[in-house]
Amino acid sequence: MLAPLAISMGDPAGIGPEIIAKAWALRVEAGLPPFFATGDARAIAAVWNGPICAINHPDAANGVFETALPVLTVEDGGEIVPGVPDVEGARCALRALELAAGLARSGAARALVTGPVSKAQLYQIGFTYPGQTEFVAERCGIAGENAVMMLAGPDLRVVPMTTHVPLSAVSGLLSIDLLVAKGRATARGLMRNFGILAPRIAFAGFNPHAGESGAIGREEIDVIAPAIAQLRAEGIDATGPFAADTMFHPRARATYDAAMCCYHDQALVPLKTLYFDDGVNITLGLPIVRTSPDHGTAFNIAGKNLAEPGAMIAAIRMAGEATERRAAADDA
Amino acid sequence: MLAPLAISMGDPAGIGPEIIAKAWALRVEAGLPPFFATGDARAIAAVWNGPICAINHPDAANGVFETALPVLTVEDGGEIVPGVPDVEGARCALRALELAAGLARSGAARALVTGPVSKAQLYQIGFTYPGQTEFVAERCGIAGENAVMMLAGPDLRVVPMTTHVPLSAVSGLLSIDLLVAKGRATARGLMRNFGILAPRIAFAGFNPHAGESGAIGREEIDVIAPAIAQLRAEGIDATGPFAADTMFHPRARATYDAAMCCYHDQALVPLKTLYFDDGVNITLGLPIVRTSPDHGTAFNIAGKNLAEPGAMIAAIRMAGEATERRAAADDA
Repeated sequence: MLAPLAISMGDPAGIGPEIIAKAWALRVEAGLPPFFATGDARAIAAVWNGPICAINHPDAANGVFETALPVLTVEDGGEIVPGVPDVEGARCALRALELAAGLARSGAARALVTGPVSKAQLYQIGFTYPGQTEFVAERCGIAGENAVMMLAGPDLRVVPMTTHVPLSAVSGLLSIDLLVAKGRATARGLMRNFGILAPRIAFAGFNPHAGESGAIGREEIDVIAPAIAQLRAEGIDATGPFAADTMFHPRARATYDAAMCCYHDQALVPLKTLYFDDGVNITLGLPIVRTSPDHGTAFNIAGKNLAEPGAMIAAIRMAGEATERRAAADDA
Repeated sequence: MLAPLAISMGDPAGIGPEIIAKAWALRVEAGLPPFFATGDARAIAAVWNGPICAINHPDAANGVFETALPVLTVEDGGEIVPGVPDVEGARCALRALELAAGLARSGAARALVTGPVSKAQLYQIGFTYPGQTEFVAERCGIAGENAVMMLAGPDLRVVPMTTHVPLSAVSGLLSIDLLVAKGRATARGLMRNFGILAPRIAFAGFNPHAGESGAIGREEIDVIAPAIAQLRAEGIDATGPFAADTMFHPRARATYDAAMCCYHDQALVPLKTLYFDDGVNITLGLPIVRTSPDHGTAFNIAGKNLAEPGAMIAAIRMAGEATERRAAADDA
């Protein structure tokens, strides 16, 4: 039997505890593999009446999973009030992440699923990473810039090649090297995590109408097309640059396995327009499988039994499927 | 009875003639008001076997419409070959547009619907406008920059506040004056054309996460928020700036009547992701109603009976409804 998945609870005052509990409650209908949470069990008990079982080691999770939600406890030093974050909660979230990532790295957990954290709270306790992705990458011995963030919904996967930077800075950050590195990591990640033998990656243009042959911008000619040519020379099925506005309707989506997007909103707008409630963030380029629901802590609805577990369920399922594929590939 | 709608055929070698004919064939099921086409009837006969009736004046269209597609002929000096554009066709398209626009302006036609033209062909015959919208605006005595392009699908309307410019130039083009002008024209257009008494217009941010209070870009603070404040001071229900990636899922779309977008793809990506086959372009700020199917000439499928008339039908219906609302408002 494969090891259980580790799910870090995220901020104890956010919706992480609630959606993990709801995912466990739906484990049979959703066909989820065994998992355990890392974090303070009190955060779950505060928002959920179901059975919780404290475990001391991931090995105990598989046996417990049928009857209770297994929790490997990381204590929050403060009071837990849903919707009211504090620095004690941020410390707990970080330790829960660190523990879950370490267990995934060691193999005691088969994959890492991360619950939503508050960056604002984490920054107050000295967290210096742009996000959980870079923290996990470093714990895996990978430079943050070599980890690739992919957002995935049922029939669309997007890779933002730049992320949280001012839009006016993006053009200066796009380079042939960057795009080639992202393209390689994406193609490899599609093979390893999604079992796609010959991944098709489609590059979006940067300008309206992909620049119309240089008439409205040159990023396509100077950077994107040369990167595509280099990837093709390496045997990767890279195409484009395509006009972004005609890349995301259903017929277009069927023509590629991942859309390589120049900036944050070019990737996130179509993904969240289509899959706001069940988008999954998966990190490619790591030695471990790491997924995350593509939403935040939602402090405003925490503790009100309003949080939808759809994205968490999709993240757990995707992590489970990816590890099964990796295990099968490694056996082959 | 209201006057008929005028539909310019667009490039005779594109799919314009075919989708106009198909819209006529579906006039009853689609509940379309009477219309006539301007252009060379041979372009329709080349791709369609249905009844065509040459008319000499718009007044004749209403009587003919039940039994044949009325065409006010503008002759193409050359041979018409579907899928093969030439400058004679471009001249014909321009004269058909000019005729239809003039008839709408005079009131002989109740509204203008424009078929798709080839800008590349038009530029060869000395056309100097960025597109049909600016040409029509000038014929109506309106400066092109005061006409507002809105793209509309069944439950989403978007206004790109800048259009066919390099993305790196957009930040420099966004000004409080521009956004206020676009906001005013949009609010007024929603009232006049869509019958919305108290329009809600939502502004998208320019940067990821709408700049996170200045942490990733300042356009929101320096330009967008002040423009919203000014519009609100004028009594217009303007809100934002909102993170663009969370503005377009179904629940978010229900909270506003139009999304004001900073750049082309911010508006067009969600619209075409959702409504690739039936998006309508409507020009606000003109004395006439003008709509257009939101797609191009599609020379690659012209003459193959593959063109879908959905967007043309939606454009005709929207123009019909807008003129009915305007007529009712003017009577009131």
